Amino acid sequence: MPMPLTELSAVVESLRTVLPGRVETDPDLLARYTTDRSGHRSSGGPLVAVHPHSIEDVQAVCRIACAARVPIVSRGAGTGLAGGAIAGPGEIVMSFRDMDQVLEVSEVNRLAVVQPGILNGQLNAVLAEHGLWWAPDPASKDISTVGGNVAMNAGGLLCAKYGVTREAVLALKVVLADGTLLSVGHRTVKGVTGYDLCALMIGSEGTLGIIVECTLKLQPLPAGDAVTIGAFFETLDDAVSAVTETTRRGHVPAIMELMDRRTLDFVRQFTGQDIAPGAGAYVLVQCDGASAADTAERIAAIAQSSGGTVEITTDPDESRRLVDFRRGAFPALEAMGTLLVEDIAVPRDQMGAAFAAIRRIEDKHGVVIPTTCHAGDGNLHPTFVFTGDDVPERVWDAAAEIFTTALQLGGTLTGEHGIGLLKRRWLGDELGDAQYDLQRRIKHVFDPDNILNPGKVFA
Amino acid sequence: MPMPLTELSAVVESLRTVLPGRVETDPDLLARYTTDRSGHRSSGGPLVAVHPHSIEDVQAVCRIACAARVPIVSRGAGTGLAGGAIAGPGEIVMSFRDMDQVLEVSEVNRLAVVQPGILNGQLNAVLAEHGLWWAPDPASKDISTVGGNVAMNAGGLLCAKYGVTREAVLALKVVLADGTLLSVGHRTVKGVTGYDLCALMIGSEGTLGIIVECTLKLQPLPAGDAVTIGAFFETLDDAVSAVTETTRRGHVPAIMELMDRRTLDFVRQFTGQDIAPGAGAYVLVQCDGASAADTAERIAAIAQSSGGTVEITTDPDESRRLVDFRRGAFPALEAMGTLLVEDIAVPRDQMGAAFAAIRRIEDKHGVVIPTTCHAGDGNLHPTFVFTGDDVPERVWDAAAEIFTTALQLGGTLTGEHGIGLLKRRWLGDELGDAQYDLQRRIKHVFDPDNILNPGKVFA
Repeated sequence: MPMPLTELSAVVESLRTVLPGRVETDPDLLARYTTDRSGHRSSGGPLVAVHPHSIEDVQAVCRIACAARVPIVSRGAGTGLAGGAIAGPGEIVMSFRDMDQVLEVSEVNRLAVVQPGILNGQLNAVLAEHGLWWAPDPASKDISTVGGNVAMNAGGLLCAKYGVTREAVLALKVVLADGTLLSVGHRTVKGVTGYDLCALMIGSEGTLGIIVECTLKLQPLPAGDAVTIGAFFETLDDAVSAVTETTRRGHVPAIMELMDRRTLDFVRQFTGQDIAPGAGAYVLVQCDGASAADTAERIAAIAQSSGGTVEITTDPDESRRLVDFRRGAFPALEAMGTLLVEDIAVPRDQMGAAFAAIRRIEDKHGVVIPTTCHAGDGNLHPTFVFTGDDVPERVWDAAAEIFTTALQLGGTLTGEHGIGLLKRRWLGDELGDAQYDLQRRIKHVFDPDNILNPGKVFA
Repeated sequence: MPMPLTELSAVVESLRTVLPGRVETDPDLLARYTTDRSGHRSSGGPLVAVHPHSIEDVQAVCRIACAARVPIVSRGAGTGLAGGAIAGPGEIVMSFRDMDQVLEVSEVNRLAVVQPGILNGQLNAVLAEHGLWWAPDPASKDISTVGGNVAMNAGGLLCAKYGVTREAVLALKVVLADGTLLSVGHRTVKGVTGYDLCALMIGSEGTLGIIVECTLKLQPLPAGDAVTIGAFFETLDDAVSAVTETTRRGHVPAIMELMDRRTLDFVRQFTGQDIAPGAGAYVLVQCDGASAADTAERIAAIAQSSGGTVEITTDPDESRRLVDFRRGAFPALEAMGTLLVEDIAVPRDQMGAAFAAIRRIEDKHGVVIPTTCHAGDGNLHPTFVFTGDDVPERVWDAAAEIFTTALQLGGTLTGEHGIGLLKRRWLGDELGDAQYDLQRRIKHVFDPDNILNPGKVFA
């Protein structure tokens, strides 16, 4: 039931009182909060956007919103790929871009305490001066915030070796819907006091609480030179053999990526260069740390014996060229139309089956689905390219079949992008009725009035 | 309100119907479930113990217990140190020792699926044949179950390098109080579908659900020889300097342990040997993997420049001697009386302050508190030795001050042993009222009738 306009203006006035000069109501400015990098757009601009500078600011906003039952959408840099931080009519956007400070770096505790609005890349530039880094490495790291990475449990290229975001967070300060401030997790490496609400909060997409401070687990920067391998294969099957054999033999590269023929075709078309003529797949591997050279040589040998044409290098420029070839996939696809980037993950022995299913789904629905894959961990990004703003129905049909395939192969709807708005209708397929219901009841414990990012994750 | 005896016998009869031949009621046999390795003992034997062989068995027992509102205490090997698996009058013990099978080992998926009753050490013996291992390494690993390790989020010696149990579990099958079977987590490395109930279940001490199957994240066995360092220091401060400097400089040994003067004295007394006369602390370090030799040499140099008398070796026998000296601490203490092993964790730069506080608490309460420490991660085990079965009041008084100290230093009541029965009264001190209340409400969502391990964790 929409709230009377007079009450909404009273809410805006209250917000102005507690955050003077940091309340946006200009519809032109508010329009940017109606979308993210998913391509999805809400039906209209939000009521208002606020820019807290402190935890107390966040609490004050929550108290006002809670009293008036007005929804709050927390937002970092708006780089999400599932519509999780999109705001619509009648909602308050809580933007964290002004809360971007590094509050502490401790070398001996191997942790940093940061405000949620700092960009991942900015943080890592600060940490590098201490010989440390924060491992979460989503492709968006230069433009996405730490708070957003935590709220989505972001993945990236390095997860097989360095874990997902959950493994890189020690503790959080969280403001609940009613303004209560909680400290969850521990400043220590170990800690088993009560339920692990820190882990529960990570990946909860702004629906359980608002993350206002992050205590991050850091790692020493890897020593020595990274070694990079680029390998072209005639067939996808050969490439899949190479990457699965690499894992099976116990090698742990930092990065292991795979691009299929469709993606190579887009890159060729975009760059106008006939790179690796005839090649049907590209594999990028990067090894770091003390065993980098030895591990890379063994992986290169596996790639070669799987039929790959292999380049191996420690030269920074040459290495960048091999990496950039992988990084060029997304821009090449984006240049050709609007994208819907899917995000299934499958057990690593099912990658070949997942690619084969995607080919069948292409044929059935008359679409092309270029697919890149974090081959170290089995996370595939089948990508749809179309014209116009709206996702065509046949694209959704094909996407739905991809989700079903992922579940049938023992995998998941979403490896790293989250549910947000885009995958709500398939959430129950993965969780089952009993778990879906249980998750909703957990949401209710944290947010009984359903004012934190309502309509996201759960339909 | 105790249940009438006739109803309790009806429950036992129902259990006999669904688990014929696997229902224990002999009071002498049931007595072993009244205690664990905490030294705590319940007021009397449980109603009955059941030995399920399958998930369906567990579900059948839960349905009976739920209908009659009879509590269930899940139990692995009974090696807990916080009383979490102790059962008392009117309770059903669900023993998992018959569900000890390895259901699957996948090298390419780097995972194993196991029943919860397998011992950690048994599992690792199987995995070693595949060149793999499961990293959680509690001191009890040869006698404790995987299910128990998961239920407690067990720590151990290797956590600074290899993480806690939570990081080594991909997915769980869990039976809820009413018999509902849930699959939580993912068979994939990444997966962000809905809330992370798998992480929530880990460390929940049998109070949210019953873990009936574990999909475990494995690692390749580290290559090459481990390098071991043993170092005696004149003072604890020197030893603490050496270990904190090791972490500060970015070294990541697999093991880094510290024993204080009190502990050395107990070992000297127990063995009758005047080992390292005058030494006031012992540090054990073990490095593994590709950088083992280089890292160990650097750490040995740090120990030496902090005043340590250092031995460094790759010889297996010599290495075992250095490790066994650390492992000898617990038997030496046990030989002298009944133990209460505490388990605080503090940020690594507060280890010196924690040891100093323990010395002050000793003086104040007239007790001795030998303390060992997982110095790689800041987890201290202040240990009380006394005569008789009951913990003397002055020991609890001293323990309470240690807990307060840990919280004041930014640490936690329990790094790895859990809350169980022993630390319930301090739980609220760490969580605060708001989080305590929230955690209780989460418990209620999973177990509305409070039949899963009631009285544990929450008073």
